[in-house]
Parts: sequence; C-alpha cells; structure tokens
Amino acid sequence: MAPRDVPYIVVSRLPLYLRALTFLAEEGKEITSSQELGKKLGLSPAQIRKDLSHFGEFGKQGTGYEIGYLQQQLKRILKVTAKWQMALIGTGDLGRAIVLHYGGFERRGFHIATVFDRDPRKIGKKLGQFEILNSQLIPQYVGKAGIKIAILAVPASEAQNVAENLIQAGIRAILNYAPITLSVPHSIQVQYMDPVIYLQRMTYYLE
Amino acid sequence: MAPRDVPYIVVSRLPLYLRALTFLAEEGKEITSSQELGKKLGLSPAQIRKDLSHFGEFGKQGTGYEIGYLQQQLKRILKVTAKWQMALIGTGDLGRAIVLHYGGFERRGFHIATVFDRDPRKIGKKLGQFEILNSQLIPQYVGKAGIKIAILAVPASEAQNVAENLIQAGIRAILNYAPITLSVPHSIQVQYMDPVIYLQRMTYYLE
Repeated sequence: MAPRDVPYIVVSRLPLYLRALTFLAEEGKEITSSQELGKKLGLSPAQIRKDLSHFGEFGKQGTGYEIGYLQQQLKRILKVTAKWQMALIGTGDLGRAIVLHYGGFERRGFHIATVFDRDPRKIGKKLGQFEILNSQLIPQYVGKAGIKIAILAVPASEAQNVAENLIQAGIRAILNYAPITLSVPHSIQVQYMDPVIYLQRMTYYLE
Repeated sequence: MAPRDVPYIVVSRLPLYLRALTFLAEEGKEITSSQELGKKLGLSPAQIRKDLSHFGEFGKQGTGYEIGYLQQQLKRILKVTAKWQMALIGTGDLGRAIVLHYGGFERRGFHIATVFDRDPRKIGKKLGQFEILNSQLIPQYVGKAGIKIAILAVPASEAQNVAENLIQAGIRAILNYAPITLSVPHSIQVQYMDPVIYLQRMTYYLE
C-alpha cells in the first residue's frame, strides 16, 4: 500500500507501537500480543491488529508477535532504519535541553548534525559538541549536507520566517516547538510540540 | 453529547481549531469559514464542519463562523474558560525552558502553581518567581491545593515513580516529557511530549 493511502491516524500510532515494543525488548521480552500492546497503549487489541494489517502480516494467530521482527518492520515502514540528519535552530533553554539532555534521538533514527542561532552573542560559542552557527548560514549548510529535517526552537515571532528559510534550503519536515501554526506548502511535513495542545486534549476529559 | 461519546480523534483536533481561531482573531478577523480554517490546518472544510457538529451548531450556511463566539464555545468544551493550576516536576534545562520562556500557558487556560525537584542542590533555590520545592512534599502540596494537572520534566528513569506519587496525590492528567510510556490507571489522562514520536510521523512521508 502506498504511504499516502494509509489513514494518518493509523500512521500516527506506529511510532507509539515502536516505542512500546522497544520498551518490552528492554525488559527482555521476545514475544508480545495485541492484548499486551493494547494494555500498554490504551487501545483495543482489534485496533492494533487492524492498524498493522495495513502494512502486512506480522504475527500468527495464537502465537503473537515476535518483538525483534516487528520492531525491524516498523522501523522500515517509518524509514528510521538509518539515521536522519537534523538541523536545530535556536539555542535558548529549550534548544539546550534538546541538544544536551534529550537522549532519545540516536537509538531511534535521528542525529542532530548542526545547530544554528541568530544571536551574535551565541554564534561561534559551543553547545555540547557543537559550534553554534549563524542562522544566515542555513541555506549553505543545510543544502550542502542534504539535511531534510529541522527542529525549530526559536521564539514564536521568528518561527514563520525561519521556517521559510529552512524550506528554501531544502528542509522537508519541521518539528516546531514555537507556539504558532506555520504556514507552509502542502508538501512540507510539520509537527507541533505545543504543550497547550496536549494539555487541552486532557482537560476535555477532566471533571 | 457526553464527552466520552465523541471520538478521540475529533477531540484531539479541537485545540488546533482553537489555536487557529486565536491566530485569526489576533490578525483582527471577526469571521472565518471552514474553508479558511481547513487551509490553515491542512484539513477538508467538510471534516471541520463534521467535527464541530458533534458539539452543536456554531455557524450559518453562507455566513461562516463568528470567531469570538466559536473561540468561547471551544474553550467551554475544552474546559479552559478558567485556569487550571499545574505542578511542574523537574527543573533541568527543559523545566527551566517551560517555566521561564514558554509564554503560552496563561492566556490559554493554564497556570504553573508550584515547581518541584528532588535534587538537594536545587531545593530552596529560585526558578523565576518560584521557590523550588522538595519532591517529597508533592503529596502534601498537590493534594491541599487541589492541583489536577502535572508537567513531568524528569529523567526517564524517574518518570514512572514520580507519576505514581503524583497520582496518589490527586493528579488526574500528566503531560509527560520523559521519553517513556507511563503505566497508569485508565482514569488518568497522559499525553506525551516525546519529539521522536512526532519526527517518526514525518519520516514516514519523506522520500
């Protein structure tokens, strides 16, 4: 099935399946079931079987899923068997936290390749292993390195401008931490790390 | 319609509608349409009309939606007309970024009321306007203040333990920044701010 033919809501759950499988593998398990996965993720076993059936046949009736195999298949479907190079823009507290303390990228298919800021007081300084580069160099560096993914950790007021520069430089996917909706062409992927969106999805259910 | 009867996928889009409406209002607009909202959000106008129809009749055929009215209705549905008090746990770079630099909580229904850390070198110090409290005081403070929402910005290895303490203290919704899946009772809301999940939702579509 072509990637675009699978409903987005199904695609959006695949990374959650992969994360849950990794968690089970780290616990030393080798086999799981749609029941166990469903319990971990708050989904019905039938939903999980139906989601996975869009991509092939990964388990056997009665014996469940081989965790290592299903992990590999999900990584292939999500295209994270090799590492994607990423550019990070913005080195405030949030950019610092992402670069220095978030340990989850490398083993899950991602690598920060370069870090930009527009603040002259930061340009040329070190952030962890990175030298902070001038944002004006985005076209040159991002294009040359063939980087397709950017993490946007700049203030809301700058986010749209920076996004446009990134797209011109060849970026195809933006993880946006700024609390604004970006206006981008349909061919560009954008995901939002806006905490209020996720908080409001919970308050709906609170008394 | 009772809150639980609306599909989660519909509920999950309401905060995006509210954010887009706020954006339009800040541009000085008073009326919008399902076409305009759809264009902003990458959804079909029919989808938007269908989503909203779960909650009532908010626009008129041909005249569109009154932005201020629809904002108020969505705030009511999402229960963010008043402010929710929140506890933040963890004051590393990420906790710092959330407290000091993320400006989006107050005007969107949320207020950080108290900040905790377990590191003796941090307890008693100031973070912005907050005195950092000992995590051991969570049961006492959170319960007494009637706080229902927590932001979890602790390392992955501590997240499950802290979550259990929070739930015992009366927390009903957790925004989890730690890159692990929490095991919590069904009655507890959890949302994950795990960047890799959002990155993998984009790489699926990349060539």
